[in-house]
Amino acid sequence: MKVSKVENLTEFLLEVKEKMAQIVNSNDPDISSINAYIFEHPGKLIRSKIIQIFGTHLGIKKVKMLELATASELIHLSTLIHDDIIDEADLRRGNETIIKKWGLKQALLYGDYLYTKTFSTLNSLDNQKIAKRLINCAEELIEGEFIQIKYHQQDVPSLSNYMEIVDKKTGALFKGMLECIGLELNFSVNQLLKLGELGREFGFAFQLNDDLADFQEERVTGKESFKDLSEGKYTFPIISSIKNMTELEQKNLFSAINSKDYDVVYKKLVEFEGFKCTRKARDSSVQKCIEYSKDLIGLDDSEFVTEYLTTLLKA
Amino acid sequence: MKVSKVENLTEFLLEVKEKMAQIVNSNDPDISSINAYIFEHPGKLIRSKIIQIFGTHLGIKKVKMLELATASELIHLSTLIHDDIIDEADLRRGNETIIKKWGLKQALLYGDYLYTKTFSTLNSLDNQKIAKRLINCAEELIEGEFIQIKYHQQDVPSLSNYMEIVDKKTGALFKGMLECIGLELNFSVNQLLKLGELGREFGFAFQLNDDLADFQEERVTGKESFKDLSEGKYTFPIISSIKNMTELEQKNLFSAINSKDYDVVYKKLVEFEGFKCTRKARDSSVQKCIEYSKDLIGLDDSEFVTEYLTTLLKA
Repeated sequence: MKVSKVENLTEFLLEVKEKMAQIVNSNDPDISSINAYIFEHPGKLIRSKIIQIFGTHLGIKKVKMLELATASELIHLSTLIHDDIIDEADLRRGNETIIKKWGLKQALLYGDYLYTKTFSTLNSLDNQKIAKRLINCAEELIEGEFIQIKYHQQDVPSLSNYMEIVDKKTGALFKGMLECIGLELNFSVNQLLKLGELGREFGFAFQLNDDLADFQEERVTGKESFKDLSEGKYTFPIISSIKNMTELEQKNLFSAINSKDYDVVYKKLVEFEGFKCTRKARDSSVQKCIEYSKDLIGLDDSEFVTEYLTTLLKA
Repeated sequence: MKVSKVENLTEFLLEVKEKMAQIVNSNDPDISSINAYIFEHPGKLIRSKIIQIFGTHLGIKKVKMLELATASELIHLSTLIHDDIIDEADLRRGNETIIKKWGLKQALLYGDYLYTKTFSTLNSLDNQKIAKRLINCAEELIEGEFIQIKYHQQDVPSLSNYMEIVDKKTGALFKGMLECIGLELNFSVNQLLKLGELGREFGFAFQLNDDLADFQEERVTGKESFKDLSEGKYTFPIISSIKNMTELEQKNLFSAINSKDYDVVYKKLVEFEGFKCTRKARDSSVQKCIEYSKDLIGLDDSEFVTEYLTTLLKA
């Protein structure tokens, strides 16, 4: 049973991509060429993977699982396009961003186009509770962006402010989409809460892992190194180091960041335990995920889920 | 009966504004301050006026009329914020735009926020057909923008291309929202078609009137003069003049536009009948609106509607 579930994943992800492509399909030649570019680099589809693993173990119907994964990926994708405008990012996953390749106006409109297609999809779901829950996720994502730009290139957020941003920008959608599996299965309020917390903790773990990857070599992670830092984003490793520093040491760190002396930055984060703190926080979230999984899907299956979650985070 | 309908309009518009304010309300201080600014200058609410006049005459329930007007105004408002980014506009209705006052990032996110709130409202409508129809309007609005930026500051669109842009950017929402009144009243396909065409023609008339206003004095229209032209937008009066010009005359016109010599531009448009053509096209659309109105709501009431439509266009 375990093997067949994993085998199904590849097929499932193909179906998600196909459904997404159908939804965003357009006769407009500009939209079409951006669509083609986007689907050449569809990303890791981590949200679909999470939905597939928990959806399968909890017993949701395949067709519902596919709807939910497609809608979640579309929400995520819609926000990415505008995120790249806000971050003035040139690259995403090693490829040029839409704003870099097509310019501000096209990127802005393409993001709007994806939003309307996403909401159109949500509106056509026959379970209105699920549509409502996912729209609420989109609202939280945008609130998270609003909070983030307050700090962007100005202040360093406190650890609790940073976690609030992560909660809204990353956690909210993982939380919401897992709750949707529960809504589909008419779960009790208590079970819905657990599913939501599981999603939220996975979101934390996932984001903290991503924060760590920003300091690793590109050849290991496939992600450009020091991208967050060069965009003026202070993430968990930086924020948790600062707590352990004197004012002078902090000043030295920011002077290294400003002069893009990332080797020095890296060494400081090792010295002041930024990476250690981040890994500790991530592992604590993973541990909570595992506890919730055990509780929700039973001990035997949860071992597989544990292995799976750990693999996902390593990917 | 006629007097009471007009009296009700002021109250109705107040209710629309109040409902919109409730929907977009947020705890985030940044969003709240933009909301406050937006609702200080709510615009003419022309879409609500059209819904109120036809909704009342066709016999739709007040509560449905209010929902429809609020949703239509929210769709319109959402697109305005991003339109101003694309047009690099400093002013809207004589007031600073969100991008000018708060910058690109906030304007972009605030537009996204309004989109999510709008779609959340659409999703909560109990008539899913109406939600679907209005989401489709939002898609058309964005497609219209895509077509428009192709021409923006590059080529002059042909008259038929320009009408395609107007059809999508302005006509589509008027068309869609009037069809929604029919959907609510379970109209026949034939009646729905007529309602849709009525909306579409009103959209044309409304836009052409707006095009003319761009060349009138600000004290008459309340709208900045030559705003479209200074944003590099070629509207009906320009495009219809060009048709009557030799290549040399066209060259002279564009040289006057480029040097912002708007007095010369104005005189050329008089000479080559740009205003005359625009008024003729507008009046032809108004005439079609009147015919459809007569057909849909009977002769007696339609006289009132005719007067009303003419007043709206003069406003």
